[in-house]
Amino acid sequence: MTAARRPYNFSAGPACLPLSVLEQAAAEMADWQGCGMGVMEMSHRGPQFKQIIEAAERDLRSLLAVPDEFAILFMQGGGLAENAIVPMNLARRGSIDAVVTGSWSAKSAAEAGKYAEVRIAVDTKAAGYAGIPDPAGWQLHQDIDYVHLCSNETIDGVEFDELPDLRALGCDAPLVVDCSSNQLSRPIDWTRVGLAFGGAQKNIGPAGLTLVYARRDLLGQALPICPTAFDFARVAAEGSMYNTPPTYGIYIAGLVFRWALGFEYGGLHGLMAIEAQNRDKAALVYRFLDASSLFFNAVEPAARSRMNIPFFLREPALTDTCIAKAKDAGLLQLKGHKSKGGLRASLYNAMPLAGAQALVDFLQDFERQHG
Amino acid sequence: MTAARRPYNFSAGPACLPLSVLEQAAAEMADWQGCGMGVMEMSHRGPQFKQIIEAAERDLRSLLAVPDEFAILFMQGGGLAENAIVPMNLARRGSIDAVVTGSWSAKSAAEAGKYAEVRIAVDTKAAGYAGIPDPAGWQLHQDIDYVHLCSNETIDGVEFDELPDLRALGCDAPLVVDCSSNQLSRPIDWTRVGLAFGGAQKNIGPAGLTLVYARRDLLGQALPICPTAFDFARVAAEGSMYNTPPTYGIYIAGLVFRWALGFEYGGLHGLMAIEAQNRDKAALVYRFLDASSLFFNAVEPAARSRMNIPFFLREPALTDTCIAKAKDAGLLQLKGHKSKGGLRASLYNAMPLAGAQALVDFLQDFERQHG
Repeated sequence: MTAARRPYNFSAGPACLPLSVLEQAAAEMADWQGCGMGVMEMSHRGPQFKQIIEAAERDLRSLLAVPDEFAILFMQGGGLAENAIVPMNLARRGSIDAVVTGSWSAKSAAEAGKYAEVRIAVDTKAAGYAGIPDPAGWQLHQDIDYVHLCSNETIDGVEFDELPDLRALGCDAPLVVDCSSNQLSRPIDWTRVGLAFGGAQKNIGPAGLTLVYARRDLLGQALPICPTAFDFARVAAEGSMYNTPPTYGIYIAGLVFRWALGFEYGGLHGLMAIEAQNRDKAALVYRFLDASSLFFNAVEPAARSRMNIPFFLREPALTDTCIAKAKDAGLLQLKGHKSKGGLRASLYNAMPLAGAQALVDFLQDFERQHG
Repeated sequence: MTAARRPYNFSAGPACLPLSVLEQAAAEMADWQGCGMGVMEMSHRGPQFKQIIEAAERDLRSLLAVPDEFAILFMQGGGLAENAIVPMNLARRGSIDAVVTGSWSAKSAAEAGKYAEVRIAVDTKAAGYAGIPDPAGWQLHQDIDYVHLCSNETIDGVEFDELPDLRALGCDAPLVVDCSSNQLSRPIDWTRVGLAFGGAQKNIGPAGLTLVYARRDLLGQALPICPTAFDFARVAAEGSMYNTPPTYGIYIAGLVFRWALGFEYGGLHGLMAIEAQNRDKAALVYRFLDASSLFFNAVEPAARSRMNIPFFLREPALTDTCIAKAKDAGLLQLKGHKSKGGLRASLYNAMPLAGAQALVDFLQDFERQHG
């Protein structure tokens, strides 16, 4: 293998990070800005870390245009823990509607059932989690605590191109969005959101950090059995410092936010540039797949994810060969999720357009040799 | 300031880490052992991270001589989250005895009250959390789920020199030990423990990683409201991979474990060497404090912590000057906890004997100038 370039890493998460972020983190590992301590070694209550977390929140708020009426919380546990933490915080009536469009939202609905009655507004499992039915046809109820959906299904490669407008559908409940695998990849329409959450380990940073965006009027209604460390109101009141936050993860996230703010692509800047590049990367790969006679993606075009593209070979016996040859070509972690098989290319923010192009070039070559 | 040495960092946590660990982490930040990915970027289910987590568990088990009958879990949330997670896992009878010897065990008892009846076996608050009463006098009950204690009180500087033998006290319940701030500093007598837990950010690694040592016969009894991500049985069954674990924290912990295994001091090796150095560091500081006419520590000698030494000036007006001058001398983060005032020197594993000596030298000088 030539040492010319860093391999392209298509992992679904934890996932590739910008090289400049990793290089900065390495350079200041043992001494952050001359203070004599590395970031991992400093008190979360000291002035240095205060500066780090405040900058991270400010930059994230700016990137995603998060309104002041939303608190941003730096928490722990990832999306799977939030599947319990969210109903423990919001399900005071004990009734939730769940939109099931893939493996993650199905898991969320099952976990919420520990804390509330969960009614399924729509479930696409029988159709292979291959699309998103028109919200006008969802079974929504009144007097529920919230409607849950997953804006991007990492395993199934299904993404909401637009969040539903619940009020326009006649539902007054807040919308809860699990945005673990597409947060920071595109704008979020906060007027349609009550609460959003996501693990950091896709577009933002290391596993172990969880972002929660909570509209402040929804805070303060936690069930009595909610652990204090996971009570959104308490976490918000203490600036994510009720318990020791995952300081190093927050620091890395902050570096990623700086990188994102400075990102340029096609004459655009910041999140607009990131979104444009994500659209172009995904289009490149889907265009190839749709024209291929060997490879295919089975998701309806309108619901296709920009972040995660599961795809398959019409000759499944070639799958392992394809993954192995890709690795030799410096295209890493393309193996599909164990529940689906095949391949999966995750194209998070830190994946450059050249990475998506390198993947397409490789697949074309592979098809020529084996198709 | 001379650039001769790295400052000594006395933070109570997050806290100093061995420089060699930080240097190795920096060197392999963007490429772990030639795999083309940094540790933060690799799938938690891939072969590289599997190697990292298995080595970390093996080395930790070896260092602390953790018997096979205990599962070691890599979790999230820190000690404060465990204050809820432990009763959600163990309190099926709904009854707990709590040993309160400082601020942390008081917090634990309060949080457990959400899930069970908590009876206070002993409480030293009225005596200023300055000692540990003889266990023979504790009020212990039968038919309880467990007895909780905190083996080292980070804020109050109170440490159990020996864990109580509950069976010898006529109590058959398992002992739960919050060892957040002294785990890996000394051996643990596992024959006296049912479950132990601790945040990593003292002796082990970055904040956001929590270690749980659970006797396997205690698993599988979680309350129905326990989040799946925090159900010890589920976490154990999935090798700490039910949800994405804090991979980078586990990697750093693994480097610290390698460092600890290779540690040598006074002709000793590994944990024995670490314990001997911790004893010597603490003795050095307490000896100075007890002989000083300006500084003092108020904890009963038998209950004094080797890890965290809160101390005070007989002229409190000099406290801020002392902390500022210490900082100028390269002795960082000596400010006492906000609830206590004064100073606090935390002497975790990564603090060398020379650091404790430098602190004593500085305090002696300060006393000569201001005493």
